[in-house]
Amino acid sequence: MSAPPLFSRSARASVASVGEEALIRRIRRWLGRASPPAPAGIGDDCAVLRPPRGRELLTVDPVVAGVHFDAAARPRAAGAKLRKRNLSDIAAMGGRPRAAVVSLALDGRVSLDWLARFYRGLASESRRWGVPVVGGDVTRADGAFVATLALTGEASGRFLARSGARAGDWICVTGRLGRSGPSGHHLRFTPRLAEGAWLARRRSVRAMIDVSDGLAKDLGALTPAGAAPAVWASLLPRRPGASVREALCDGEDYELAFSVSAAGRAALERAWRRAFPRTRLTFIGRFVRAGAVPAGALPLGKFRGYEHLR
Amino acid sequence: MSAPPLFSRSARASVASVGEEALIRRIRRWLGRASPPAPAGIGDDCAVLRPPRGRELLTVDPVVAGVHFDAAARPRAAGAKLRKRNLSDIAAMGGRPRAAVVSLALDGRVSLDWLARFYRGLASESRRWGVPVVGGDVTRADGAFVATLALTGEASGRFLARSGARAGDWICVTGRLGRSGPSGHHLRFTPRLAEGAWLARRRSVRAMIDVSDGLAKDLGALTPAGAAPAVWASLLPRRPGASVREALCDGEDYELAFSVSAAGRAALERAWRRAFPRTRLTFIGRFVRAGAVPAGALPLGKFRGYEHLR
Repeated sequence: MSAPPLFSRSARASVASVGEEALIRRIRRWLGRASPPAPAGIGDDCAVLRPPRGRELLTVDPVVAGVHFDAAARPRAAGAKLRKRNLSDIAAMGGRPRAAVVSLALDGRVSLDWLARFYRGLASESRRWGVPVVGGDVTRADGAFVATLALTGEASGRFLARSGARAGDWICVTGRLGRSGPSGHHLRFTPRLAEGAWLARRRSVRAMIDVSDGLAKDLGALTPAGAAPAVWASLLPRRPGASVREALCDGEDYELAFSVSAAGRAALERAWRRAFPRTRLTFIGRFVRAGAVPAGALPLGKFRGYEHLR
Repeated sequence: MSAPPLFSRSARASVASVGEEALIRRIRRWLGRASPPAPAGIGDDCAVLRPPRGRELLTVDPVVAGVHFDAAARPRAAGAKLRKRNLSDIAAMGGRPRAAVVSLALDGRVSLDWLARFYRGLASESRRWGVPVVGGDVTRADGAFVATLALTGEASGRFLARSGARAGDWICVTGRLGRSGPSGHHLRFTPRLAEGAWLARRRSVRAMIDVSDGLAKDLGALTPAGAAPAVWASLLPRRPGASVREALCDGEDYELAFSVSAAGRAALERAWRRAFPRTRLTFIGRFVRAGAVPAGALPLGKFRGYEHLR
């Protein structure tokens, strides 16, 4: 089954044929139960929400045609990815997602059928995680399809920042890495919300990030001052067929990488097996003092992460 | 003084020449004090914020090159507009803005100089209103420039929805309408935050919207069931040179339209003159029972609002 085309060959089947007001009505229909009525949802100048419990989390990420999905991708999967990319950011803080707004900048030739499937994918993931779409905007952008989702969440207890790791901590990663594009993982992944929230409740876990730009780059953000990551190639959990370079650089893994105190490793490992028996957890190395990286460890500085602009 | 070009003629002066990580460092520098450090700002998977007081407001709007600004527009003004469009939505609820995230989807040829000015305009308006940029994303989008800003706000007391007007209410509008594009108002306007918050505290004001798609269309959203707006052409506050049609249809006025109870008009007018002596307030008509629109009133249904997709 091939994916329907993003741009309609028939003017009558394009978004331009219905105009903005009618398109917004359709979007609300496509979103269905994922879109509550105003004032808590679409239909006013702003959505009006109950305040979060604890701290508020806020993030934004788009999907762009030709960058985050290609012509072979199913539109449902592209819409689901828009939702899941942002959920992964909330997961990486150990938070709980609350509500989203979606801004659509698109060429008038975009197919209504394609867009309906895109929104149904977005709606399906929104219902799955209980995160409504409470507002949005539709704008023309010639030749482009850029859908941007901003997501608010809450951290009622502890949250995990990228900073907080210490030299001596173990470095852990969920799932497998590499070849996210060719394997289709970048569309099919499940955001690690349950795992992230669980990890934030464990004091031995000190810092966390979601692996979206490639582990080699993202580990840099997790590395404390004066330290360096010592990671072993043999320990890297690679997706089938992925080379070490692909596991380090491909990006779009949407897994969690985090640091665990040396004393906390054994207890965390045991508790993880009970809580998430089907999700792989791998200790891939440790943070060591800068300049004290053992000879056998990977030279991570030589593996560049994903560069969005080149 | 002509505006610098959006796309650089020299590859060395383009965003692609610096790559994503370096570009994000520059963006933080351009934002300066408008961008606090993580975890309350840019630099983690999510920004971490104190929860709002009262209800939370959430909105999103982009600026797209060729749609919201053209080649003649100064990049500073385009960046300021991105901020102000969203502030106008918070103003329309009578709320207070809190924090923003910005997602940038852009062609690799975009000029660094142009982008620096764009962000400085955004930063300047952010400081002016005390609303930091706490996160964002940068992504490639061939041939396009789409900057999307999501804004959270708070309504610690009463907020004003689009619904709530009643037949018999007066219809009011701030400022002047029409020819926002040719006059440059769409770039120069000041969001009506102070006015919006003031109006939300007055019980006689029942419903409010910001006039962004043209008054004829936006009044439709303010009109209660079973009623119709009776608006007089002679009362419309038009921008110099604007026709009645332009005042009703042009869009991008970023003024406030609201309904006032019949009994509350005189007191509101007096109090407004004291609070905002330099801002025009015009009573342009009333909501009447559907079917009872007087013969001299404007046939608003015949004036179409701005259609973003055609």
